[in-house]
Amino acid sequence: MKEPTFRPAPAPETFNPAEPAEFAPVNFASDNVTGVAPEILEAIVEANRPQGAWPYGNDDVTGGLNERFSELFDTEAIVYPVATGTAANALCLSLVAQPFNTVYCLKHSHTNEDEGGAPEFYTNGAKLVPVPAADGKMTAAALEAAIGEVGGGGARLPHVMEAAAVSIAQVTECGTVYSVDEVQDICAVARANGLFVHLDGARFANAVAALGCEPSEITWQAGIDLMSFGATKNGAMAAEAVLLFNEDLEETLSRRRMRGGHLFSKMRFVSAQLARYVEDGLWLQLAANANAMADRLAAGLAEIDEIAIEYPVDANMIFAALPGDIAERLRDAGFDFYDWGDPDRPNIRLVCAFNTDADDVDRFVEAARR
Amino acid sequence: MKEPTFRPAPAPETFNPAEPAEFAPVNFASDNVTGVAPEILEAIVEANRPQGAWPYGNDDVTGGLNERFSELFDTEAIVYPVATGTAANALCLSLVAQPFNTVYCLKHSHTNEDEGGAPEFYTNGAKLVPVPAADGKMTAAALEAAIGEVGGGGARLPHVMEAAAVSIAQVTECGTVYSVDEVQDICAVARANGLFVHLDGARFANAVAALGCEPSEITWQAGIDLMSFGATKNGAMAAEAVLLFNEDLEETLSRRRMRGGHLFSKMRFVSAQLARYVEDGLWLQLAANANAMADRLAAGLAEIDEIAIEYPVDANMIFAALPGDIAERLRDAGFDFYDWGDPDRPNIRLVCAFNTDADDVDRFVEAARR
Amino acid sequence: MKEPTFRPAPAPETFNPAEPAEFAPVNFASDNVTGVAPEILEAIVEANRPQGAWPYGNDDVTGGLNERFSELFDTEAIVYPVATGTAANALCLSLVAQPFNTVYCLKHSHTNEDEGGAPEFYTNGAKLVPVPAADGKMTAAALEAAIGEVGGGGARLPHVMEAAAVSIAQVTECGTVYSVDEVQDICAVARANGLFVHLDGARFANAVAALGCEPSEITWQAGIDLMSFGATKNGAMAAEAVLLFNEDLEETLSRRRMRGGHLFSKMRFVSAQLARYVEDGLWLQLAANANAMADRLAAGLAEIDEIAIEYPVDANMIFAALPGDIAERLRDAGFDFYDWGDPDRPNIRLVCAFNTDADDVDRFVEAARR
Amino acid sequence: MKEPTFRPAPAPETFNPAEPAEFAPVNFASDNVTGVAPEILEAIVEANRPQGAWPYGNDDVTGGLNERFSELFDTEAIVYPVATGTAANALCLSLVAQPFNTVYCLKHSHTNEDEGGAPEFYTNGAKLVPVPAADGKMTAAALEAAIGEVGGGGARLPHVMEAAAVSIAQVTECGTVYSVDEVQDICAVARANGLFVHLDGARFANAVAALGCEPSEITWQAGIDLMSFGATKNGAMAAEAVLLFNEDLEETLSRRRMRGGHLFSKMRFVSAQLARYVEDGLWLQLAANANAMADRLAAGLAEIDEIAIEYPVDANMIFAALPGDIAERLRDAGFDFYDWGDPDRPNIRLVCAFNTDADDVDRFVEAARR
Repeated sequence: MKEPTFRPAPAPETFNPAEPAEFAPVNFASDNVTGVAPEILEAIVEANRPQGAWPYGNDDVTGGLNERFSELFDTEAIVYPVATGTAANALCLSLVAQPFNTVYCLKHSHTNEDEGGAPEFYTNGAKLVPVPAADGKMTAAALEAAIGEVGGGGARLPHVMEAAAVSIAQVTECGTVYSVDEVQDICAVARANGLFVHLDGARFANAVAALGCEPSEITWQAGIDLMSFGATKNGAMAAEAVLLFNEDLEETLSRRRMRGGHLFSKMRFVSAQLARYVEDGLWLQLAANANAMADRLAAGLAEIDEIAIEYPVDANMIFAALPGDIAERLRDAGFDFYDWGDPDRPNIRLVCAFNTDADDVDRFVEAARR
Repeated sequence: MKEPTFRPAPAPETFNPAEPAEFAPVNFASDNVTGVAPEILEAIVEANRPQGAWPYGNDDVTGGLNERFSELFDTEAIVYPVATGTAANALCLSLVAQPFNTVYCLKHSHTNEDEGGAPEFYTNGAKLVPVPAADGKMTAAALEAAIGEVGGGGARLPHVMEAAAVSIAQVTECGTVYSVDEVQDICAVARANGLFVHLDGARFANAVAALGCEPSEITWQAGIDLMSFGATKNGAMAAEAVLLFNEDLEETLSRRRMRGGHLFSKMRFVSAQLARYVEDGLWLQLAANANAMADRLAAGLAEIDEIAIEYPVDANMIFAALPGDIAERLRDAGFDFYDWGDPDRPNIRLVCAFNTDADDVDRFVEAARR
Repeated sequence: MKEPTFRPAPAPETFNPAEPAEFAPVNFASDNVTGVAPEILEAIVEANRPQGAWPYGNDDVTGGLNERFSELFDTEAIVYPVATGTAANALCLSLVAQPFNTVYCLKHSHTNEDEGGAPEFYTNGAKLVPVPAADGKMTAAALEAAIGEVGGGGARLPHVMEAAAVSIAQVTECGTVYSVDEVQDICAVARANGLFVHLDGARFANAVAALGCEPSEITWQAGIDLMSFGATKNGAMAAEAVLLFNEDLEETLSRRRMRGGHLFSKMRFVSAQLARYVEDGLWLQLAANANAMADRLAAGLAEIDEIAIEYPVDANMIFAALPGDIAERLRDAGFDFYDWGDPDRPNIRLVCAFNTDADDVDRFVEAARR
Repeated sequence: MKEPTFRPAPAPETFNPAEPAEFAPVNFASDNVTGVAPEILEAIVEANRPQGAWPYGNDDVTGGLNERFSELFDTEAIVYPVATGTAANALCLSLVAQPFNTVYCLKHSHTNEDEGGAPEFYTNGAKLVPVPAADGKMTAAALEAAIGEVGGGGARLPHVMEAAAVSIAQVTECGTVYSVDEVQDICAVARANGLFVHLDGARFANAVAALGCEPSEITWQAGIDLMSFGATKNGAMAAEAVLLFNEDLEETLSRRRMRGGHLFSKMRFVSAQLARYVEDGLWLQLAANANAMADRLAAGLAEIDEIAIEYPVDANMIFAALPGDIAERLRDAGFDFYDWGDPDRPNIRLVCAFNTDADDVDRFVEAARR
């Protein structure tokens, strides 16, 4: 089991807004480089009823989300649509952590390292406390040890911030997927210590598709209290949801979303994405393609001696160590991806998406092999 | 010149998400009850290029916004797209006010009373200080008096929060429009006291269409430092911009937008709305219809003895005092609008939009007259 | 009934730390220009037991405060010592107002205009909403009107921040004192609207001494939920208390005080001041002198034709309008005080303290008369 | 080189305010269980001039602090008195880290684990990022590696919070003292990466006394930009200072201290402690006794086979692993101290203070030996 020790910021030329890098025809950089799935775009267009609708979520589409997600998760679920994963995560954490609380997470988790301080902002100063990871996953044992150390749920002195929650990502930032048992174990430790558990489900569809389980099994039945339900990376335009399984957590959410500037006046265009996304299993079909393509890609690369796959490829992400000249050759051939990890040991991240094409995957493997 | 003394929250039945009120066929409640203008919806669809694009604004459409807005405003303008007006306003204020600063505004301004504390949140605790209004407008004299009172730019004691900025809305919350001279006068007072001036331009298009001036005249040339440039109320789906005329203000904006959760991964879908909105004068055409319809509506109502128009109808909003039975009759006839103002003196707000139809306006007047 | 319309910051020369103004032998500028009452200084010295004590309030003196104040207030009272009035006020407000709440206060209240944004800081962004004042007092009627206007306890939309509390000062910033009835009436309106009531008691001793009532009558029996109990202005070195009459409000206080940096390791030196202050009626004796001296001073000044007393002199503060040459003459004679109010109508503030001397008062009046 | 892996909260009975534990006659729990050094108490009494003084630091004693500390540190130093170390640390960090910045520190540093979230509060949400420690010290190499990893000074994406500062403690939380070279090396890495360096000097006197160097050598000459200068643990009642060597950092400090509620009206009583503390070398004399007693204590314990000293005893703190029955025997003999560290390996912390008596030390060693 490994953990990335180094994760450099992308090269400056890639992210210079004044002079954006060329966008490669086949781009495995992230599932967020994609567009919108046709079904979802159609739902947006259809939501544009000429006569209008009540604003701020007082429309039919938004009004129907609770029921739709309650069916999907087989329990009373409460849905608040937002448009970015960072907003969903930060709002979720603000419901479970007061400013003088801590939240256990992983050092390289998105909440801790990739949200520009949004969790600290929305919680008004709560602290994210890293727990050691194995293959990008938190373990129940590591969580238990961390709680025992300092800042655990039983801290008595006001000097030591009191632990209030645990946050894990599913799919993880290393592309691995927690099993139902693993989530249950983490939640059991959390519950025994009075901690809420939040799930960052930016790629939740990929996890459910990979596990082949019911959404309920890997969430509230396992002990998850609330989650960020992502759709954007898997075919939506900009649609995520704060999803609560514990109705006690709802009390302040409406006001927190408002003061964060995330209450959309024409909310139905966000809600329509979410509604269509979970209709007729679309979300799992899209995720299944992404996962299958990653599987195909990993299988192809695994056969190349010079390439080592870094973590179990459980869903739609691959981390691969490979010689620099192979990376260069692939880029010359019109592919793109992010460098990731220790510069002394070239490492790339490849992400497949809802619309990744098998031919592109095969051509990539072939180009790597040559 | 009047100022609303009472502004009740909308009736509960109107805003019960569990059981949304029926949406009247012809609804003057707000310009945000509308859908998306066809041209803008088309631009969104076109932005969905199958091959994807770099995320987080590193795409061509977003990359071109600075140039596009710089042409429109005839100066170097810096554009950061967001998706709600509250986000735009709160981010703007966070650039000009530190946590121990004050910002002069009007009591009934959107920033002060309708954004759920977003300005306080994004500035980490700055204080909005109300200045008396006349017909919904701040006057240079009232601003000067307020600065002289307490908390002015020259406050020496740390006890008294230091003033840092002024924020005005154009179109105002009373539907009035500041003239170029009025904005210049306010900005002159602000500048003399070392204060930045922010413009809440949620309905900026309606103001420019009403004034018939260049966008530059009523903004940076008059002394505005930064503005919230709105598009959502005038035909976009969810697109606003933080627009800076003072490049010194940009330094922290990228990080502030990120930590607020307002950096969209598929940013091009927001940017495409803004780009199309200002292309070929679309924004002013849409606003011109809204203004013309409000004018027609106000003219019609003004002829009815029992109805009094409350403020100058400069743009697309009308506040009218009228007997309760007329309001009831109008609602029974299939029209809708918000109650607004002192309950002892029934008062309604009527807002026309980019797609308001002249026949509907005429039918409304007729129904009111009967 | 009047309200100050202008309150300039003190002249720069008075507050230039690099070159502090000379300190006049007889100084009526504020009761905080005084030193420490001998009894309280002695208590501090006595608290310095050579063998030490448990830190952070786990000492006997601090441990006994709850009982001592419970007796004084004839109810279960919870005491958290701090060292500044701003800390006490801001911590109190943080217990009753969430970041998306509003607190009704007066425009010229200390919390709103003289604490540099501490209330906004400690509440993480709650908004102070001014209610019109009469002679420096809030009235139940004005509070009721403000609640009815916007942002009242029943606000349904997340756009409008929800009211959570009322904060009044006793003695007021104009030197007036609320009667028991007046406090009861305000609290009745608050309670009917679900609002907590906070009392800023920086000069609480002066109010109780003036009213001649029991501390309980003017606080919890009248409906006050929590208060800042001040001692510094009335003879302590640096000692105030967050005082709770409602035990439900205690839950997060210990952690909020800690994260504000107000948990003293050698707490007993703060607690010893509070303990001695309320022992044997010392606090009321000290306040009685201050009040009596203000009364004597006001009576003397009232006889001078050119001088007008601005507000009822209920406790230890006098606001007087007087010609500029009188003020100048007084300063030349070795007295000092702050200018206060509209510069077009010279106005000064005179504050008497626990150690103000009758001879000094008489000499001041004589000097003013000449 | 070791690092504590476990640091339990003190036993509940020790910290139950309702029923404070008995205070042992000889108590090595912390240097904050002490009282006030006689010289400093005398200075407080002397500051109580009957005629009063201008408040808020506009008095002579406070006015003279800058000069006094400038002499002591042989450079232009700026001094802002406060009354707790947490306030000093949190205010310092708020000057160098914006809400979207990170600050490198140690996991078990006071700022990270013992200030109840004050750094996050005062910076409005900046993140403390732990760097691995050796014997309680940060190393330049570990800092460099952490910067290289993620969130370094050169981060380009707004997703990754930008590093702004490094914070180290001197004396460290393990009782070790950084050499001048070690501080220089850390500061060199910081400077090369555009980071400010803050020193938590809660026990700074003990460090200077131990190093026998000039205060300047181990601070600004080595690259320290600002520090928390502690006096409370070493004989003051409640006096610490925010001490700036970089005048650019002062701009917002006055307002930040105010809004934190740390501007004392009768400031001279805090300032008098600081002034006396650094007069005639008192601070170093007091620290020298504490260090000598710790040395004597460590030497005595080191001769006992069953006891192992955990870290170099550089100043006035000793961490000792010892069998549980010895700890019990010591407590029975009337000594007290905190348990510290892994419960499986009993470990205690012993802190000597300015007034620790050699006889008590010797009796402690003897009792441990028996």
